[in-house]
Amino acid sequence: MATAQKPITLNGVAVSELFSTIDAVKATPSIAKFKFRIRNQWEDGSRNHSTVTSLTGANQEFSHPVPFRLEADEPTILLGKDMAANPVEHLLHALASCLTTSMVYHASARGIQINQIESTFEGDLDLRGFLNLDPQIRKGYQGIRVNFRISADVSDDRLQEIVQLGTGHSPVYDSLTNGVPVSVTAERL
Amino acid sequence: MATAQKPITLNGVAVSELFSTIDAVKATPSIAKFKFRIRNQWEDGSRNHSTVTSLTGANQEFSHPVPFRLEADEPTILLGKDMAANPVEHLLHALASCLTTSMVYHASARGIQINQIESTFEGDLDLRGFLNLDPQIRKGYQGIRVNFRISADVSDDRLQEIVQLGTGHSPVYDSLTNGVPVSVTAERL
Repeated sequence: MATAQKPITLNGVAVSELFSTIDAVKATPSIAKFKFRIRNQWEDGSRNHSTVTSLTGANQEFSHPVPFRLEADEPTILLGKDMAANPVEHLLHALASCLTTSMVYHASARGIQINQIESTFEGDLDLRGFLNLDPQIRKGYQGIRVNFRISADVSDDRLQEIVQLGTGHSPVYDSLTNGVPVSVTAERL
Repeated sequence: MATAQKPITLNGVAVSELFSTIDAVKATPSIAKFKFRIRNQWEDGSRNHSTVTSLTGANQEFSHPVPFRLEADEPTILLGKDMAANPVEHLLHALASCLTTSMVYHASARGIQINQIESTFEGDLDLRGFLNLDPQIRKGYQGIRVNFRISADVSDDRLQEIVQLGTGHSPVYDSLTNGVPVSVTAERL
């Protein structure tokens, strides 16, 4: 059928390419292995930035069309100059963007059309952890609350399922809720 | 002593303010409680962005001077338009920026001068998790490797201690290595 040959796009996702990818990975599992990387450079005080240039995937190297520059600073209350989002705000963005994209890709693969998605993310942090003032208080987020608001022509149950497609597949959600082993080495520059 | 009254800055960090903050938190622990938040908006396909406007801390609301806008996309191999870093690259930036800032703040509090810090972060991700092709393979990062290169006039042992000031205090490192509870609700828009 001619229609089956045309690229099918839903919610801006090339669904036919997504299915081709799944078939390709089934045939050659090694192409599913990706390495993502960044380089960070300290500037001064609370300011530093990362550069995102390339990634490895599908047994190839890929360069981004331009290197992406991601900035970080701290608000003045945390002794920064408030020129950029701070690291824990970037963490919320990583989580938000990943949940949203995971939701959109998997809903599209199931033929669910989505009109609009908005979300808010809020995390609690007690600085007594970072400041070593109480060993009982963790350094990191104590908890993160997420609220999605979705417009789609589906039942209420189906609306909740769309969100579960996000939490059930998102790499950042899995990394953050279940933890990731991080190995750190250092040398003299 | 007059010198003790002057603001003392090391590595761009207002160390005297850092010690004042510690004293203030000791006197009034509730000021250590912070809430960081973002709002995310889906655009199309793999593209969405977050807006970072305000935070709560020290029993007050703070607005950033301008709302920070953080973009997300996917590389073309992952069916995006490659207009911005992707969510798992943003996660590496959150980790890198937090480790670096934590290191710099705590080294500064200890009077250690740092000349330069560079670092690279690389994470392994097997897409068979995201694509539901193998239930044994996790959705998130399988592991992240970090390498710091530091210029400071200190012994080799002290150089390793500087890095441990980062891993020992960083909120994102703690969040990511130990995991964070995330609660998700959804409603119709």
